[in-house]
Amino acid sequence: MGKSTPLKVALLGCGVVGSQVARLLIQQADDLRARVGRPLQLVGIAVRDLSKPRPGIDPGLLTDDAAGLAGRADVDLVIELLGGIEPARSLILAAIEAGAAVVTANKALLATEGGTIFAAAEAAGVDVYYEAAVAGAIPIVRPLRESLVGDEITAVLGIVNGTTNFILDRMHTEGSDFASALAEAQELGYAEADPTADVGGYDAAAKASILASLAFHSRVGLSDVDFEGIDAVTSADIDAAQEMGCVVKLLARCALSADGSIAVGVHPTMVPLTHPLASIPGAYNAIMVESRNAGRLMFMGPGAGGQPTASAVLGDVVTAARNRVRGTRGPAESTYSGRAITPAGAVASRYYASLSVNDEPGVLAAVASAFATQSVSLQAVRQESLGERARLGVVTHLARQEQVVAAVAELDRMPEVTPGISLMRVEGA
Amino acid sequence: MGKSTPLKVALLGCGVVGSQVARLLIQQADDLRARVGRPLQLVGIAVRDLSKPRPGIDPGLLTDDAAGLAGRADVDLVIELLGGIEPARSLILAAIEAGAAVVTANKALLATEGGTIFAAAEAAGVDVYYEAAVAGAIPIVRPLRESLVGDEITAVLGIVNGTTNFILDRMHTEGSDFASALAEAQELGYAEADPTADVGGYDAAAKASILASLAFHSRVGLSDVDFEGIDAVTSADIDAAQEMGCVVKLLARCALSADGSIAVGVHPTMVPLTHPLASIPGAYNAIMVESRNAGRLMFMGPGAGGQPTASAVLGDVVTAARNRVRGTRGPAESTYSGRAITPAGAVASRYYASLSVNDEPGVLAAVASAFATQSVSLQAVRQESLGERARLGVVTHLARQEQVVAAVAELDRMPEVTPGISLMRVEGA
Repeated sequence: MGKSTPLKVALLGCGVVGSQVARLLIQQADDLRARVGRPLQLVGIAVRDLSKPRPGIDPGLLTDDAAGLAGRADVDLVIELLGGIEPARSLILAAIEAGAAVVTANKALLATEGGTIFAAAEAAGVDVYYEAAVAGAIPIVRPLRESLVGDEITAVLGIVNGTTNFILDRMHTEGSDFASALAEAQELGYAEADPTADVGGYDAAAKASILASLAFHSRVGLSDVDFEGIDAVTSADIDAAQEMGCVVKLLARCALSADGSIAVGVHPTMVPLTHPLASIPGAYNAIMVESRNAGRLMFMGPGAGGQPTASAVLGDVVTAARNRVRGTRGPAESTYSGRAITPAGAVASRYYASLSVNDEPGVLAAVASAFATQSVSLQAVRQESLGERARLGVVTHLARQEQVVAAVAELDRMPEVTPGISLMRVEGA
Repeated sequence: MGKSTPLKVALLGCGVVGSQVARLLIQQADDLRARVGRPLQLVGIAVRDLSKPRPGIDPGLLTDDAAGLAGRADVDLVIELLGGIEPARSLILAAIEAGAAVVTANKALLATEGGTIFAAAEAAGVDVYYEAAVAGAIPIVRPLRESLVGDEITAVLGIVNGTTNFILDRMHTEGSDFASALAEAQELGYAEADPTADVGGYDAAAKASILASLAFHSRVGLSDVDFEGIDAVTSADIDAAQEMGCVVKLLARCALSADGSIAVGVHPTMVPLTHPLASIPGAYNAIMVESRNAGRLMFMGPGAGGQPTASAVLGDVVTAARNRVRGTRGPAESTYSGRAITPAGAVASRYYASLSVNDEPGVLAAVASAFATQSVSLQAVRQESLGERARLGVVTHLARQEQVVAAVAELDRMPEVTPGISLMRVEGA
C-alpha cells in the first residue's frame, strides 16, 4: 500500500460522540494523515434513523445497514459508538472477524462481554482500543496498559461518573437535596432523562471493572463489582461529612487485598478534604493510581461530553491506524495473573455510622459494645444531645464490611436505637 | 525465537535510578516476562567505578566498558541512565546502530540532540522511549504521543521540577528566604550539592522543549526555550503573590501563539490559588494539557526519585520489549508541522510589577503613562504609602514581553522610581 492509499474507517452510531468523531475525521484530515502516515477515509456511518437531519454530515455516508457496514471486508477500522450490549456486541465481533481493528467507547459491553471480544481480537490478530470507555478524555487506559506496565499497582481510586459528581457537588455547595440536584443536572444536560445507569452506580461499576482488569492484569467483570449509587444519599449524610471535614464522592475503588485477591467496589464515600480527589469539581472525573514504585499519580479531566470523548476516540483511531500502517498490533489484553475477587463482605474500609438513640445512661456503652462484639474498633465518637434523643456519629477503624453490617444489624434491634442507621464508607486508613 | 528465549537488556549507569531499575528487573522478573511475552535478561551494567559496593547487584554484571556493552550486537534493549550529553550521546547512537531499542531518562540530551537521536533511530528502525525524561513517574510522554494524538493541543503548562517546587513551597509556607529553603532542600535530598541545573531553570527548560515537541508535532530544542530560574525570587515576591491570592511556581509554558508559532518558556510565575496547578505540593510535578476537544487535563505525581523514575523506565522497557517480541515499533517522533518559535519578546503574558516610588503627586500618573506609551493596559494597581516612599503593585492585562520590558526600562529611568523594578508573570487571561 502506498502512502496515499487511504485506510477505510466505518463509524457505527452518530449521536453526541459519533457526530463529533465524524466532524473531526473530516476537519482534521490533514493532521490525521500526517500522524498516521496514510489518509483516513470515512466510508460509512451506520445510523438508526436515516431521515434525521445531520448537519455537516455527507448524507451519502449514512446507512441503516450496520451489519453490512461492520462486516465489510475492505474496512480497516470500525468505530463503535452505539453503546449498550446488542447490537454493539455482534457488530464488533463481525468487524473483528472481517479483520478490522476496533475502537469503542462502550464500557457496558466491555464490562460484561470483554472476555469474548478480547479473545476474538486475539484470534483474529486485530487491535481493540477503548480509551473513551473510562473517564472520557482522560488518558487512563493507555497509562495503565503501557506506562505503568513495569510497575506493581496496588490501588486505583476514581471519580469516574460526572453526573453523580455534579449532583453531589451541588448537594454540598448549594445545600440541595438529591432530587433537586438531579433535576438541575438534567436541565443542564449533565444527566440523562433516565438517569438510572448514572445515579444507580451501574456506569461507574462498569468503568471500575475495566480499570481493575487493566491495573491487576486479571479479568474483572461487572458482576464482580460490589456497587451502589447515590440515590440514597441524604442531606444529613452531606452535613455529617462536612462536620467531619469530608465531602461525599461516588468513589470507585479497586485494590489488592492482603491475600492477593482484588476488591472492586463503587460506593458513596466520605473523602477527607485533604485528599486530592476531594476537590474534583462538577462534572469532572479523576483517577488516582497507587503503585509500589511510581507512588501516587492522579489524572484529571472532563469525564464526558461529545468533544472530550471524541478526542479519546480519535487518539485510539490514530494509534490503531498507525499499527495497521506498520502491519503490527498494540498490546493485547493481559489477564495472566488470574486473581480471585475479594468477597464484598471481606473488603476492609473505614465506616461512618449515624444513629439516633435515646439520650439516657448506658446507651453509648451498649452501642460501643455492639461494635466491640464484632471486633470493630472505633476511631471517633461524637454525641449530640437533642433533648430526649441524641445523635451518635461513629467512625470505625478499618473493618470488614461483614463485621460492620453485623454490628449495625445488632444496633438496629436495640430498643434504644431508632431503626434505619445511616452507614457510609470513609476513605483513608 | 521461542517464548522462553530471553530479550537481552543492557543498563548504562547504576546510580539512584539505575540501581532501582536493576533491582526491579530482577525482583519482578516473572511479572515482566508475563507482560512482555518473553523473559528479560539483564546482561550487563556499565558503571564508572567498579570498586564501589553495590548491594543486591551481581558483581559479574558490572563492567566499566560502556562502549563495549552498548554496542553488543546481541543486546535487544539498552537503558541509558547516565545523564548529561557525553558519553550518553555516543553510547545511544552506538546502541541504535547495533540494532537495539533505547530507553532513556536523559532530558538534557533529548533537548539538545533529540533530532540526531530520533533520526538515527528512524534510519535503523528501532524504538527510542523516554517517559522518564519528563516529570518522573507521571505518564505524560505516552499520553501526548498517543492518547491525544487525535486532538489539537493548544497549551501545555507544567510544574516539571520538584526541587524548585519544594523550595518555593517552603518560601510560601515557612516564610523562608531562597537561600535557607535551598539549604533545607539539600539537607532533605531534594536538591543536589550543585543545584544550578534545577534552580537555574535549565532542567525545566529541557523538559519544556520535549513537551512542546510532542504537543505540537514540531522540533523544539533547548535553545528555543526562553527560561529563567528561581534564584532571583525574593521573599517580597512571595508576599506580593500572597497578597494577590497567588502562589509563585516555576511554570513551564508551551503554547500555540496566534500566528501558529510555538511559545516556550520557563519562568517564576504567580499562579492564582484557584488554578489547579497552584495546589501542587512539595516535590510533586503536575502537567496541565489544554486541547481543542479534550478540554483541560491534568496529570500529577512524584516528579523525581529513584523508584518513581525507575517505574517510568520499566514501563518503557516493557513497551519496547513487547514491540520487539512482535517484530514491530512504536510511533516515531512526529515533527511534520515544522512550526516556528515565537520570539521571546513577542510572547504574551500578564505581568506583575512592583515599584518603589516617591510618595508625591503625579507619580502614579507618570507610571501609568509609561505603560500606556507601550500600549500595555493595566488590570489592577495597588498603592501602599510608606511615608516618603510608596510601593506600587501593578498587574497588566495580556501584553507582549517586549512591551512590558520597554515600559519597565522607561520607569527605571524616572527619578521618582527606585531602580530595580521587580517583574513577574501572572498566569491566566
